[in-house]
Amino acid sequence: MPRFEWVTAGESHGKGLTAVVSGVPAGLPLEAKHVNVDLARRQKGYGRGGRMKIESDAVEFLAGVRAGVALGSPISMWIQNRDWKNWSQIMSPEPDAVTDRRTLTRPRPGHADLVGGLKYNHQDLRNVLERASARETAARSAVGGIAKRLLDEFNIQIFSAVLQIGPVKADVDVNALESNAEFDDSPLRCPDKEAEQKMMEYINQRQRNGDTCGGVAAVVARGVPPGLGSHTAWNRKLDGRIAQAMMSIQAIKGVSIGEGMRVAGVPGSEAHDEIFYDDARRAFYRKTNRAGGLEGGVTNGMPVVALIAMKPISTLARPLQSVDIQTKEPFIAQKERTDSCAVPAAGIVGEAMMAIVLATAFLQKFGGDSLSEMKRNVDGYLEYARNF
Amino acid sequence: MPRFEWVTAGESHGKGLTAVVSGVPAGLPLEAKHVNVDLARRQKGYGRGGRMKIESDAVEFLAGVRAGVALGSPISMWIQNRDWKNWSQIMSPEPDAVTDRRTLTRPRPGHADLVGGLKYNHQDLRNVLERASARETAARSAVGGIAKRLLDEFNIQIFSAVLQIGPVKADVDVNALESNAEFDDSPLRCPDKEAEQKMMEYINQRQRNGDTCGGVAAVVARGVPPGLGSHTAWNRKLDGRIAQAMMSIQAIKGVSIGEGMRVAGVPGSEAHDEIFYDDARRAFYRKTNRAGGLEGGVTNGMPVVALIAMKPISTLARPLQSVDIQTKEPFIAQKERTDSCAVPAAGIVGEAMMAIVLATAFLQKFGGDSLSEMKRNVDGYLEYARNF
Amino acid sequence: MPRFEWVTAGESHGKGLTAVVSGVPAGLPLEAKHVNVDLARRQKGYGRGGRMKIESDAVEFLAGVRAGVALGSPISMWIQNRDWKNWSQIMSPEPDAVTDRRTLTRPRPGHADLVGGLKYNHQDLRNVLERASARETAARSAVGGIAKRLLDEFNIQIFSAVLQIGPVKADVDVNALESNAEFDDSPLRCPDKEAEQKMMEYINQRQRNGDTCGGVAAVVARGVPPGLGSHTAWNRKLDGRIAQAMMSIQAIKGVSIGEGMRVAGVPGSEAHDEIFYDDARRAFYRKTNRAGGLEGGVTNGMPVVALIAMKPISTLARPLQSVDIQTKEPFIAQKERTDSCAVPAAGIVGEAMMAIVLATAFLQKFGGDSLSEMKRNVDGYLEYARNF
Amino acid sequence: MPRFEWVTAGESHGKGLTAVVSGVPAGLPLEAKHVNVDLARRQKGYGRGGRMKIESDAVEFLAGVRAGVALGSPISMWIQNRDWKNWSQIMSPEPDAVTDRRTLTRPRPGHADLVGGLKYNHQDLRNVLERASARETAARSAVGGIAKRLLDEFNIQIFSAVLQIGPVKADVDVNALESNAEFDDSPLRCPDKEAEQKMMEYINQRQRNGDTCGGVAAVVARGVPPGLGSHTAWNRKLDGRIAQAMMSIQAIKGVSIGEGMRVAGVPGSEAHDEIFYDDARRAFYRKTNRAGGLEGGVTNGMPVVALIAMKPISTLARPLQSVDIQTKEPFIAQKERTDSCAVPAAGIVGEAMMAIVLATAFLQKFGGDSLSEMKRNVDGYLEYARNF
Repeated sequence: MPRFEWVTAGESHGKGLTAVVSGVPAGLPLEAKHVNVDLARRQKGYGRGGRMKIESDAVEFLAGVRAGVALGSPISMWIQNRDWKNWSQIMSPEPDAVTDRRTLTRPRPGHADLVGGLKYNHQDLRNVLERASARETAARSAVGGIAKRLLDEFNIQIFSAVLQIGPVKADVDVNALESNAEFDDSPLRCPDKEAEQKMMEYINQRQRNGDTCGGVAAVVARGVPPGLGSHTAWNRKLDGRIAQAMMSIQAIKGVSIGEGMRVAGVPGSEAHDEIFYDDARRAFYRKTNRAGGLEGGVTNGMPVVALIAMKPISTLARPLQSVDIQTKEPFIAQKERTDSCAVPAAGIVGEAMMAIVLATAFLQKFGGDSLSEMKRNVDGYLEYARNF
Repeated sequence: MPRFEWVTAGESHGKGLTAVVSGVPAGLPLEAKHVNVDLARRQKGYGRGGRMKIESDAVEFLAGVRAGVALGSPISMWIQNRDWKNWSQIMSPEPDAVTDRRTLTRPRPGHADLVGGLKYNHQDLRNVLERASARETAARSAVGGIAKRLLDEFNIQIFSAVLQIGPVKADVDVNALESNAEFDDSPLRCPDKEAEQKMMEYINQRQRNGDTCGGVAAVVARGVPPGLGSHTAWNRKLDGRIAQAMMSIQAIKGVSIGEGMRVAGVPGSEAHDEIFYDDARRAFYRKTNRAGGLEGGVTNGMPVVALIAMKPISTLARPLQSVDIQTKEPFIAQKERTDSCAVPAAGIVGEAMMAIVLATAFLQKFGGDSLSEMKRNVDGYLEYARNF
Repeated sequence: MPRFEWVTAGESHGKGLTAVVSGVPAGLPLEAKHVNVDLARRQKGYGRGGRMKIESDAVEFLAGVRAGVALGSPISMWIQNRDWKNWSQIMSPEPDAVTDRRTLTRPRPGHADLVGGLKYNHQDLRNVLERASARETAARSAVGGIAKRLLDEFNIQIFSAVLQIGPVKADVDVNALESNAEFDDSPLRCPDKEAEQKMMEYINQRQRNGDTCGGVAAVVARGVPPGLGSHTAWNRKLDGRIAQAMMSIQAIKGVSIGEGMRVAGVPGSEAHDEIFYDDARRAFYRKTNRAGGLEGGVTNGMPVVALIAMKPISTLARPLQSVDIQTKEPFIAQKERTDSCAVPAAGIVGEAMMAIVLATAFLQKFGGDSLSEMKRNVDGYLEYARNF
Repeated sequence: MPRFEWVTAGESHGKGLTAVVSGVPAGLPLEAKHVNVDLARRQKGYGRGGRMKIESDAVEFLAGVRAGVALGSPISMWIQNRDWKNWSQIMSPEPDAVTDRRTLTRPRPGHADLVGGLKYNHQDLRNVLERASARETAARSAVGGIAKRLLDEFNIQIFSAVLQIGPVKADVDVNALESNAEFDDSPLRCPDKEAEQKMMEYINQRQRNGDTCGGVAAVVARGVPPGLGSHTAWNRKLDGRIAQAMMSIQAIKGVSIGEGMRVAGVPGSEAHDEIFYDDARRAFYRKTNRAGGLEGGVTNGMPVVALIAMKPISTLARPLQSVDIQTKEPFIAQKERTDSCAVPAAGIVGEAMMAIVLATAFLQKFGGDSLSEMKRNVDGYLEYARNF
């Protein structure tokens, strides 16, 4: 019953991906192109492998949208897998259509393969990896696209940038990010061009060694009004909800809010953001944003900033030792087609998850079944806030 | 309707704290002493202020437990505030009993004060800070105590240790933590005694400057069976759920799973845990635990490890600038009684949150309304796993 | 994370009952007396047994309320069991304090005793019946009292009346109910005084035979704005949510919305409510309310009407056959102190559940963290509705 | 995160219906034919109109199933609307593809039209009725088909029968229902053949008058083990959950459990089910089932019985007065193609909802990620129960 409830379904080499989103306000202008832009952005980035070229993801609305406008009923989206005809004899839901019965019994370190097989009693590990694959993030991006469309009506914009690839760090003021356009065509979405060059060199070097690399991306939301989330209960705190959303992205192993990792090491006098008041705008403000826009689990009107740390992709060209689940014999994981770096894409998926969390919190605070009702409620609150 | 659903209530200077936990299996041996031990551990640690001495928290079971055994019905716990008689004229629920009507109008940077006041339309910021206070973690510790009691029946143990205070880092193998006993009486819960000495010196130095410090703690669960959590949906991934649980702790601004922050900087060949098989134990195992016990959002049988980064306490003895919400005049935040370092306590609260997440996942996987039914189900699964 | 989430805890002869409600808007005036009125109303009614005289329930706010106003944080309530001192040696949570170890092994037909014992592996059926008892509805009434307090701010009022006791039916226009005051002091809360007299005679007659009786009550909410609930998803339909809330009341076995049972038997031309428009009020209206205020799972502005059918109380003075769970020997259930009719009380509890469902739907539609924000949002919607 | 979470999407004349089900255990044999059987049964029944002939619903698995077996990942199903090509110029999600821009402004009494338009700010009421339509129950039937497939593995079977059409009542022992096969080809799914004849005559008579009729159906689950649901919390009581599930079906206005409506009128001595013990089977049993298989909100091993009361279809051939929302002028609702009686179909949908509620409760009690794990847990419990 919460608003902006969503679910995804779909295997990496199945027919396609389904995403259903409930509770989107009626009257929201919504077309496939609004969502497709993020599906395309997700597929870019230096260091991506061959599949990104096969796919060119596009969403089809199956329900919940009519004539370019959301109806208020659940929105069903479909992203067809372009490569399905080559996989149907392996992946078909119909027993008779599955003519290729080879099983995967060799779990890859760093993947869900082994634990997923054990948990779900799958002797064919393909039954795990097809769903555990980061392919699922295409569906999340589509959901995020709807969330962004909604937030855009309230002038909330979400950006991402790459801050680190392997050991190469960039010098970036994440609070100054104001546009995606300038990065969308850059190789690594990194505002520090000198660092970006070194990052590409590092990726090349790893690739030559058959190795992969991880990194850190920043996700930033601007224009978020103060008052989303709540300090009153652990599961209503917005920082916790952002942390779950980000950590649930495939291969993400660390999340911080604002300068979270850095402020753990500095004294309190350098860790917080002093409060000022602007008489002209009738608004409280800060000159710094160490807190990443969140105090007590509630947005404070500054940009909401999350940093996400991605481990290197575990589909290694350079193999690691593992054990066959049938024979219990050791083996060396075989070479597979793979991306060598997906940090820019992780940032795009991070944007989607940030948008989803904020849209959910927005609907919780402001209610409203139609876009016009939401706007009336939000406008009333912002007017009130100016007089607080 | 999920199992191990819980809620806390209570203000920092109110009558006390309430915690209600639903879905605990019937037949679980449960006494106040099981919970009180963590309440006491939370109150320890070098750098705590005066209040920890006033309080000596103890839980009273109000419902759900009879003769030292859980009934299967919701468990209600009560932690009385020892200091209530001194606060009743300010905090009483009865209008007539509130004789002290002074209001707090000066928000502290780094707290929920300002945004909470705005969100909930409180002109008296005490109405915010009373609930936003870390006092609430005493109730979480009580809930965590029940979770630990349950997990203990399945030989799952949870530990914490301090890894960093301000800039002082310790050299600790978090995967080797096997006991809380040896740290519970140490000043900072740090296994590296040399580093602990430097940490205390750093705390002293900050205190002399009227300043505070943050740091990093590790939370580790041992004995967790493989297969908790799921790779199949974003909100069933256990890493995301742990991240939310940890980030929701007051003053926590960063979370990583295993060596999450470090592996972002190393090549893929050094970031994963190779898989081996032990014929004698009939079990898959790893020699490393970079993944922190979680692959694809599912436990893999290795210790589950989370690192949490805490910002310095924001109740500064050394003041920061802020603005009075009534007059809109700037002021310098007044001196308050305060802890100067609470990282060891954060680790204890982290233990509670880890226990809660694991107990929830345990009940989701294994079901069972009574402890004996749970044990039958778990034993069946472990026997199956040995034959996988 | 939904608003107006609530939980109760407590055994019938335990220390008392706990209820925690989350998401109540800050600024709501709220005092114990607002809640106690319904606790008292629940205890009345012709045919109640001895316990109602022992108890005189009153609520104490333990958290979430300060100086007669809700803080926006979770509200914890406590209803002490007056009789606890007589039960502590049987029901204490502390093992040493339980000196009376007799066990109940004789399940009563019509109660949870047997299935609860089996489900939770309790050999002492007291561990089941203490929680299954309708005593729990005192806590629900307290939660409902808060919901009513909130709805009252929006001029929504909730009433109940008894329509049937055993076979004796009253002639009542449920849509005309406009006040509880006139029934609160009547023996059976029945507006049809002639029928009420026959009902009392029937109760007397059953009591003389050592028997009990059930009946039907109506629960009616007036002043509900159109647009609560939703037709878009099965679990957002308000009729379904009301049905669950009502059927979950102890001993309720049937629920209808409006003239639900009757309209199943009439032709469509007599089953619906024609739509008219009042130019003066600028409002659509109906002359009939067969639908009970709900079309498509959404409120339509007419009174929301639910009828609830209660089975006769199963704590029989006149015994039924059962089987001892230890010996497997048949026995005849022993005589116990009991109410012989609790239909009026069921109506009061039905009011509480109706209030809870409506308050939840209200918060979902209108959002708002403070009462003033809610009012601004509701007023905006009502103004919009007048121009629809 | 609960198991067997599900969502449907889709408009009545849109491209089709989507249904996604999460938490189905891996290893469950599952083919389209298992689901299609109920889609076909839903479309039958005397008194259905023209659309049932156009449609011949069939499900396609888009995700979550491979080679006839559930993967444990979310299952996505698609039911294409056969008639889409005739509706695309009205209903397309793409603005340019919508060439027919006529709007519906005349709300039908008894439908969500008016309140849905108001709630969601739709001036074209088609935006409401497309989703509020009972067409959505085809998707529910598909979800129910999966639930039935799961329950079938545990020998739980679900049946429905028509007990009343308009004023014509049948004489049926609902506890004796043991097969759907014998009713699936009968005109009204009524076991009392004499009554069924009168029902058909009544339907004919109403149709001749341009009128519609409602009625009552029974939904019965056999083979349900004791111990599903819980007495410990209002929202875990299975009777409440069944009531919500049933009342959420389009046009259902009343629900009773067992002989719920009847027992409200009889004395307690005739309202309950005495308990006996069968030494041979080592099982407690009852000779009657007035409680409908539920005591204290928990299944007791007897058939679970729900009766559902359906109002007459409100798409009247015989018109009712209403008001145009644009002009505010009264009008007489125009004639539409319509079913005149859908009570048998409501029973089929009731089977689906019963299956969903039971499957959910089953997964909550027994856990298990694979079918084999579930079976091990269930078998262990049943063995325990025989020794209780």
